Amino acid sequence: MSSTPAGRLNIDNVNPHVREAKYAVRGELAVKSEEYRAKLARGDTDLPFKQVISANIGNPQQLDQKPITFFRQVLSLCENPLLLQHEDVLLNQLGYKTDVIERAKWLLSKAGSVGAYSASNGVPAIRQSVADFLERRDGFPANEADIYLSGGASSGVNTLLHVICEGPNTGILVPIPQYPLYTASLALLNATCVPYYLDESHNWGTDVSAIKGACAEAKAKGVDVRAIVIINPGNPTGASLSEDDIRSVLDFAREEKLVVMADEVYQTNVFVGKFHSFKKVLRTLQKEQPGKYDGVELASLQSVSKGMVGECGHRGGYFELVGFDPKVQAEIYKFVSITLCAPVIAQCLVELMVNPPKPGDPSYELYDKEYNSIFNNLKERAYALWRAFGKMEGVECGEPQGSMYLFPTVKIPAKAVEAAEAEGRAADEFYCLRLLEATGVCLVPGSGFGQKEGTLHFRTTFLAPGTEWVGSIVKFHEDFMNKYR
Amino acid sequence: MSSTPAGRLNIDNVNPHVREAKYAVRGELAVKSEEYRAKLARGDTDLPFKQVISANIGNPQQLDQKPITFFRQVLSLCENPLLLQHEDVLLNQLGYKTDVIERAKWLLSKAGSVGAYSASNGVPAIRQSVADFLERRDGFPANEADIYLSGGASSGVNTLLHVICEGPNTGILVPIPQYPLYTASLALLNATCVPYYLDESHNWGTDVSAIKGACAEAKAKGVDVRAIVIINPGNPTGASLSEDDIRSVLDFAREEKLVVMADEVYQTNVFVGKFHSFKKVLRTLQKEQPGKYDGVELASLQSVSKGMVGECGHRGGYFELVGFDPKVQAEIYKFVSITLCAPVIAQCLVELMVNPPKPGDPSYELYDKEYNSIFNNLKERAYALWRAFGKMEGVECGEPQGSMYLFPTVKIPAKAVEAAEAEGRAADEFYCLRLLEATGVCLVPGSGFGQKEGTLHFRTTFLAPGTEWVGSIVKFHEDFMNKYR
Repeated sequence: MSSTPAGRLNIDNVNPHVREAKYAVRGELAVKSEEYRAKLARGDTDLPFKQVISANIGNPQQLDQKPITFFRQVLSLCENPLLLQHEDVLLNQLGYKTDVIERAKWLLSKAGSVGAYSASNGVPAIRQSVADFLERRDGFPANEADIYLSGGASSGVNTLLHVICEGPNTGILVPIPQYPLYTASLALLNATCVPYYLDESHNWGTDVSAIKGACAEAKAKGVDVRAIVIINPGNPTGASLSEDDIRSVLDFAREEKLVVMADEVYQTNVFVGKFHSFKKVLRTLQKEQPGKYDGVELASLQSVSKGMVGECGHRGGYFELVGFDPKVQAEIYKFVSITLCAPVIAQCLVELMVNPPKPGDPSYELYDKEYNSIFNNLKERAYALWRAFGKMEGVECGEPQGSMYLFPTVKIPAKAVEAAEAEGRAADEFYCLRLLEATGVCLVPGSGFGQKEGTLHFRTTFLAPGTEWVGSIVKFHEDFMNKYR
Repeated sequence: MSSTPAGRLNIDNVNPHVREAKYAVRGELAVKSEEYRAKLARGDTDLPFKQVISANIGNPQQLDQKPITFFRQVLSLCENPLLLQHEDVLLNQLGYKTDVIERAKWLLSKAGSVGAYSASNGVPAIRQSVADFLERRDGFPANEADIYLSGGASSGVNTLLHVICEGPNTGILVPIPQYPLYTASLALLNATCVPYYLDESHNWGTDVSAIKGACAEAKAKGVDVRAIVIINPGNPTGASLSEDDIRSVLDFAREEKLVVMADEVYQTNVFVGKFHSFKKVLRTLQKEQPGKYDGVELASLQSVSKGMVGECGHRGGYFELVGFDPKVQAEIYKFVSITLCAPVIAQCLVELMVNPPKPGDPSYELYDKEYNSIFNNLKERAYALWRAFGKMEGVECGEPQGSMYLFPTVKIPAKAVEAAEAEGRAADEFYCLRLLEATGVCLVPGSGFGQKEGTLHFRTTFLAPGTEWVGSIVKFHEDFMNKYR
């Protein structure tokens, strides 16, 4: 360390809630993997691998996934509207179709310039387009005034938790395992995370009795439990909720007056069964039993980062509010105003996601081909990985269901657990670190998401192309087991 | 109101710190102006004006300002890299120059896809480009590891205040008048804003004795004053600090061990004198008096939203840290990781801003012409507005100095103050509301930024084209004064 005089800030006096927040997806392992990547880029040949595989984060376009052509063509025109003065060149020489040009013109007419701030909750016409999509998806009305365009779903979660959490005593039910955004945000807000466990024995299903138990226990301690987070399809588990499960959750939310936060960013990444939106199920319940469910408050989140869109880097998303008090909505509006607005080009991408080319449109055929190819690729890779896990000693993994992840259990020999303890590490972290050092494959240890005491897991995306890296995991695991047996 | 049963959340039980936060720039007046705009768009002819002029917010491209061609050409290629397969068409038919194509290729080689998450602190090569710019600007080294790319400067301020504020007792010195992002963020964090007044009698200069007084008073009350915000050039005042003023501030920061947060987003919007960066002055002091200033911590912020770039909607920016403890930097890195990364296309725009075409480059001539035309236009409009204010009874305004704003004092007759009180409004808010209703011109009342007890101001941008709106303010003011005299 340098000998500069100490400044005002040090690790002991910064915001303790920042200090406490944990975010394993981009933690020590991720940082180390980037160091390896930089080393390899410098031509270093010391490492026992030639490539770093970032299977720690759902970042499709960092790996193999190509963006959807229609989306990017429209965005290129939004970025440089001067190109619209050359329609003939676009159409005849650059492969742009008429619907690309029309859409770009329409978006520009509504947003003005993508370099201008929009309304704090997003460009009104884009919010209307989202509302139209939700109506088509669910068969129930949606109102543009209840839609908030956000910088990815993360920023939406941040907004909602900021407004919902009154103080340290506010409790939010969060599934375990979970995407660590939730626990990190609650730590920052100094609110109480009330964990409920998903049921690994039923393919990570949502078990309402587990939710009830966790809620009752927290309430008995005096916690003001006021919201429940549901990630459907699940992250890191991939599990997809049945309509009955959603009804049970909504029923419980109604009884306990819990705000439902439905993280539905993987709604198109479903391999088994069918995605059911919380909004549709809530509206159906309200229709079936008039009056009974009227007080239920639902916030559902979506993003351009996931699905077949996979445009993480653009930071676009939205959330819809159902049943929220107008005065509470005004506070949400004020909160989003403070950071001005979501990136406008990402708002345009949200519009393209919810309103893609339709059959008969000039760009439809290519769009449809690209979309299906991405979907099928993801599914194939998921199964290839799953089959590889099936061959690994002490590893158990349910059949892939959706999202972009697998979350196998791994049973590690006692000697390995001891070796981990000697390093002051959790056993799953120790395992993932050794794997990274040996193979260049970066996973996230289960402890980053939470797991039942005494169980160990890791999360891997199934985005990386090829099978070599899968083979290297199998090989590493064999060596690891042999070493510590 | 509807008769739906009350939900869990209401205005009395949401986060009290969100409730307390104020953000006048996008408050009641702004919302009302948007309603008027929508009315006019529907063809409504009831209103006494034909156009809404949003002079409340520094949003150049919402008004007259065109984006700089070089920037948007490069971004269009980053959005649709397939266009790079048609270089001949780009060059010969679409007016793209070779440096546009080269830059896009370089950015894509460094970022991968703009649809992929980057490193949490931004694409390394773009951080290096920012560091290179800072070295050229200041004549002192800069390190890419100390640069954090952010979603506009607002998100940088949010990050820094989050880490700096330990609890309710943490005090941050904030200039009054100020951009309300600071007070709003401190309210959200439940930390203490320690206001210090700028000196209107010296063209809104920074008066170190006022800072000392405010700091001493807060410390006497037991507040842990640990940082000072300086907005240079000023918002809403436009004032530009002299090198001596900056030395005095840094000296005081050294004595009191205050972290300096230098909001330098208007660094190129300077009409009078010259911009001096805090970094350069700090490094100069450190060179002149070795050892003495080594412990000073400085964070300086920049954005693509302001200057001649004016790309607010893209949400790009960065901050540089100087003298921060590595462990504190690690907390900052973790904090930004939780929201993953700044929009990657906006990161590319940051790179273009700090590394624009140079003399001799194919795109230089047009870039230079566009840049200077924007600068001169802003200056002309600022002076036209200033001259108009000079003719208004009871209005006083210093000569335009920089940024995008004028912040005149207005003396309102006692009868108008009474009428405002009868409506339960501050007098400046009352004035601005009547102005909006009569003319469609939206300003921000001085109370939104803070002002000395007993004084009234408003802030207006000088971005809107034409002179008609200026005339309508003059006319309104005359009528207002006559009515309430």
